[in-house]
Amino acid sequence: MDISLVREDESLDDLQLKGLHVIQKKEGFRFGVDAVLLANFAQVKKGSKVVDLCSGTGIIPFIIAGKSEAARITGIEIQEEMVEMAQRSVQLNKLENKIDFIKGDLTNLELLKGISKADVVTVNPPYKLANSGIINPSDKMAIARHEICCTLEDVIIACRTLLNDNKRMYMVHRPDRLADIITLMRKHKIEPKRIQMVHPNTKKAPNIVLVEGQRDGGAFLKWEEPIFVYDEEGNYSEQINKIYNRSNQ
Amino acid sequence: MDISLVREDESLDDLQLKGLHVIQKKEGFRFGVDAVLLANFAQVKKGSKVVDLCSGTGIIPFIIAGKSEAARITGIEIQEEMVEMAQRSVQLNKLENKIDFIKGDLTNLELLKGISKADVVTVNPPYKLANSGIINPSDKMAIARHEICCTLEDVIIACRTLLNDNKRMYMVHRPDRLADIITLMRKHKIEPKRIQMVHPNTKKAPNIVLVEGQRDGGAFLKWEEPIFVYDEEGNYSEQINKIYNRSNQ
Repeated sequence: MDISLVREDESLDDLQLKGLHVIQKKEGFRFGVDAVLLANFAQVKKGSKVVDLCSGTGIIPFIIAGKSEAARITGIEIQEEMVEMAQRSVQLNKLENKIDFIKGDLTNLELLKGISKADVVTVNPPYKLANSGIINPSDKMAIARHEICCTLEDVIIACRTLLNDNKRMYMVHRPDRLADIITLMRKHKIEPKRIQMVHPNTKKAPNIVLVEGQRDGGAFLKWEEPIFVYDEEGNYSEQINKIYNRSNQ
Repeated sequence: MDISLVREDESLDDLQLKGLHVIQKKEGFRFGVDAVLLANFAQVKKGSKVVDLCSGTGIIPFIIAGKSEAARITGIEIQEEMVEMAQRSVQLNKLENKIDFIKGDLTNLELLKGISKADVVTVNPPYKLANSGIINPSDKMAIARHEICCTLEDVIIACRTLLNDNKRMYMVHRPDRLADIITLMRKHKIEPKRIQMVHPNTKKAPNIVLVEGQRDGGAFLKWEEPIFVYDEEGNYSEQINKIYNRSNQ
């Protein structure tokens, strides 16, 4: 592995999946359990073309490359610094034949129409409304976390624009936005087909929601068994260890 | 208690709540855990006027009478036989000053407009679509379980018609209809404010959903901690025992 690709203010994080690693800033936006859960939730068939929106440092493309036989995975990210970092992670993992990243704005529908249609779209969008407690809108963390550059509706329109007929999108978000997610999906003719809730533990309300939507799908919503991140002793649960491929360690 | 009010083909069931009892058919539609969970989920302030739609044998009005200081609780039910049975339960519990039942069709908006506005509306509607596996549409069980006499949209319109400004409705339903519930609530300007999922146990997907909606409410959806009906040994969980007031027994 060409470690010279990693800079001083960056860390190289082991995804514990087929030797894959991802470059991240030591301080700044770092991927969380949300991204790992989303990559696990997405169903990616052999030969699929995948697009990951709001791709950040590219964590979701790398996990999907590791767990599936996708033909091509394209990450789209608005922040140039993130894209540049993700592209170095591609070199580092020698995945140039499978993953690429595009610096782009998902509200630019002409850009999206120029990309070949996707069989799977994944997205871990900013969770917070633009008006909720932003200190500095040009801040990189704020862009990743707040709806500054794109709203939830922009994200759903982008998914519809990218998806092939009857193909599926996978989104991770906060449960308090589920009413918005469902109404906006239906407004843009993406039918919510499958939901999985993630709870800190069995006593707590869910704090992460995973949603699968099908372009022009028929109405039937399946609920998965819940995921509990921690067990009763406060350790990672078996479910989480399995998702992180830690079960045999 | 005047036991002569109970007929031969009926049973008298102890609600284990302030000595309340409800008359039900021995064979036929009998209340389930859904109704008990809904009555527990509803927040009823002192002096409230409550309307319960699809009231059946009146289980929800009786539980709410037992657990709250509601001023008045009116159950509306389309099946005459059920209403007559519920009215005998009122006599039996000597709750004539608090509970009454009306035989009526909730799609009859003129009827609803004639009832004084409610601070709380509860509803345990038929769960199944009218076209899904009905044997006999005149069957009493079928009417209670399938959308024969009213659709989900009819129910939501009835709730809006009955509710005072900014007051709240509480519905129990199946999670696979949640996308419909949310889109129809928003269509009729009832904002989903609170959801609680009920699972058979911690390993299973939810099979009951409790939804609170506010007439003309602002958007913010709170999720409650999940309810698990059975514990790991297959016994009723502490949560359920508490809801059923069995904790000290």
